[in-house]
Amino acid sequence: MGKKDVTIGIDIGGTNTAIGFVDPEGNCLYKTTIGTKGNEPADKFFKRLKEKINSLIEETANELFLRGIGIGAPNANYYNGTVEYPPNLSWGYVNVIDILQKDYDVPAAITNDANAAAIGEMKFGAAQNMKDFIIITLGTGVGSGIVCNGQLVYGADGFAGEIGHTIYDPDGRLCGCGRKGCLETYASAGGIRRTVLEMLGTSGTQSSLRELNPEELTSKKIYDAALQGDRIALEAFEFTGKVLGTKLADSVAHTSPEAIILFGGLAAAGDLIFEPTKRHMENCMLNIFKNKVKILPSALQEGDAAVLGAGALIWNELEK
Amino acid sequence: MGKKDVTIGIDIGGTNTAIGFVDPEGNCLYKTTIGTKGNEPADKFFKRLKEKINSLIEETANELFLRGIGIGAPNANYYNGTVEYPPNLSWGYVNVIDILQKDYDVPAAITNDANAAAIGEMKFGAAQNMKDFIIITLGTGVGSGIVCNGQLVYGADGFAGEIGHTIYDPDGRLCGCGRKGCLETYASAGGIRRTVLEMLGTSGTQSSLRELNPEELTSKKIYDAALQGDRIALEAFEFTGKVLGTKLADSVAHTSPEAIILFGGLAAAGDLIFEPTKRHMENCMLNIFKNKVKILPSALQEGDAAVLGAGALIWNELEK
Repeated sequence: MGKKDVTIGIDIGGTNTAIGFVDPEGNCLYKTTIGTKGNEPADKFFKRLKEKINSLIEETANELFLRGIGIGAPNANYYNGTVEYPPNLSWGYVNVIDILQKDYDVPAAITNDANAAAIGEMKFGAAQNMKDFIIITLGTGVGSGIVCNGQLVYGADGFAGEIGHTIYDPDGRLCGCGRKGCLETYASAGGIRRTVLEMLGTSGTQSSLRELNPEELTSKKIYDAALQGDRIALEAFEFTGKVLGTKLADSVAHTSPEAIILFGGLAAAGDLIFEPTKRHMENCMLNIFKNKVKILPSALQEGDAAVLGAGALIWNELEK
Repeated sequence: MGKKDVTIGIDIGGTNTAIGFVDPEGNCLYKTTIGTKGNEPADKFFKRLKEKINSLIEETANELFLRGIGIGAPNANYYNGTVEYPPNLSWGYVNVIDILQKDYDVPAAITNDANAAAIGEMKFGAAQNMKDFIIITLGTGVGSGIVCNGQLVYGADGFAGEIGHTIYDPDGRLCGCGRKGCLETYASAGGIRRTVLEMLGTSGTQSSLRELNPEELTSKKIYDAALQGDRIALEAFEFTGKVLGTKLADSVAHTSPEAIILFGGLAAAGDLIFEPTKRHMENCMLNIFKNKVKILPSALQEGDAAVLGAGALIWNELEK
């Protein structure tokens, strides 16, 4: 029996790095993880990563045939093959593709996690057969990947797709990027936390969230409270959807996507976030765009999505 | 001697429709105009247009060989070949490509004027050799054309590129589109007029513009006053650049263009608009994008730009 063609998908996160094979049908095989160890220098990390890759390849040598390596990583640049000064890793400027291609004689490509997620949805998920869509990742930060004419938009410098850093309110919340009022300061896990803290301060409304100290207040606890009808929690989701929907109306005016896919932690809140986002987006949109743009959840298996996206990235290159 | 290959470029404006041949080097030949007559039904307009096209073709039959027809028009849809309920024409929904291809056996394509301008700049103007750029047309309204990966972005529905209708201030000025605070209400010819009127009302600053009645106050007069150092006029350009630069920073976060080209009436004010736009854009931009994005004037011959853009549209299709 012939071997099965696969790519390796590698998702480098701040805490863990997930590695798995991805077959042409979008199955994730032999998935495993290593610690990323953010304060470790890049060369040590890549030594450990290669050991893990080698043992995976060895283990599956009779069964799988490696066609390429795809990587999703913070501050990754597709054109340069680099990771450039990632905020939570002490790597500085690292050419990841050079490092990998010293040892592996297959094509490799890298991009940031949101772009990898976009390609994952296009090949295997909610955006199959779509030529124009946007993915928004609502996690610790807010990332985005934009697809136009069936191609991911990397822009002139490889860093396109930073919708999380479009400005909702120029006098608004301080963002990690040093500016004020970025979408990310409202529509991320930390953003909804800040919204609840503000609301607890400004309103007198009763809320079970008042019993938590600010350290304990997580987006998960806000979600649980909302499910139980807590008014502050419900208002916080409503406000988050308002901010997100307002900014997405601007995004639609740029690239007029068929759909916007919401992905990541906050998207798991389902209708609590989808309904107000959709309502406010429709409300803010130019007439010609109204009632056209779907807001969809990711259709990738939750735990595998990042590895599938990274694996899809290189499948996509191989098909070019 | 062989005949020269040309396309016809047709720019349908609210008042006049310009028609000319466009050669592969971007020269505009035999340009002429007819009145658009906005309250005339579409079939009458196209009857007159065809008569003009026929006489142009007849006149040049020994010299030129027609390869295609490109049209720029308000509310035009590239995918459908239609003009759909244009605001200043009583046409309703018209399939322009069907109408033209009944009589002319050459490829034809239509898009809105800003998209046509983008393709004109890409083929013959300031964006030659660029794969990622944005054009902003600052005229009666604010239009835009977005190019990513060397292709114009039409979006899922053919209406992408409405940066003029992204929101600067949700509580801001009423826009012709029925919403509030669109970029167009600030950065258009009418927008700077509104800015001056507001400033004349709210400040006590001396200004030659106070001598004009509101009917006489045009963007040209504001420009002339600014050149003479009028403080209100200068402040109005500063504010216009602030609004435009702030919103362009959001656009950069979407598609990370190599350049943004400013085109049309207000762009003719040169440094008065370019300098504050660039300064505020840089100020509002995410760090990774700073000092990368050029703001450029159009490089198309002013009077011919719209016809060149329309002619370039179909040259671009022929080369696909």
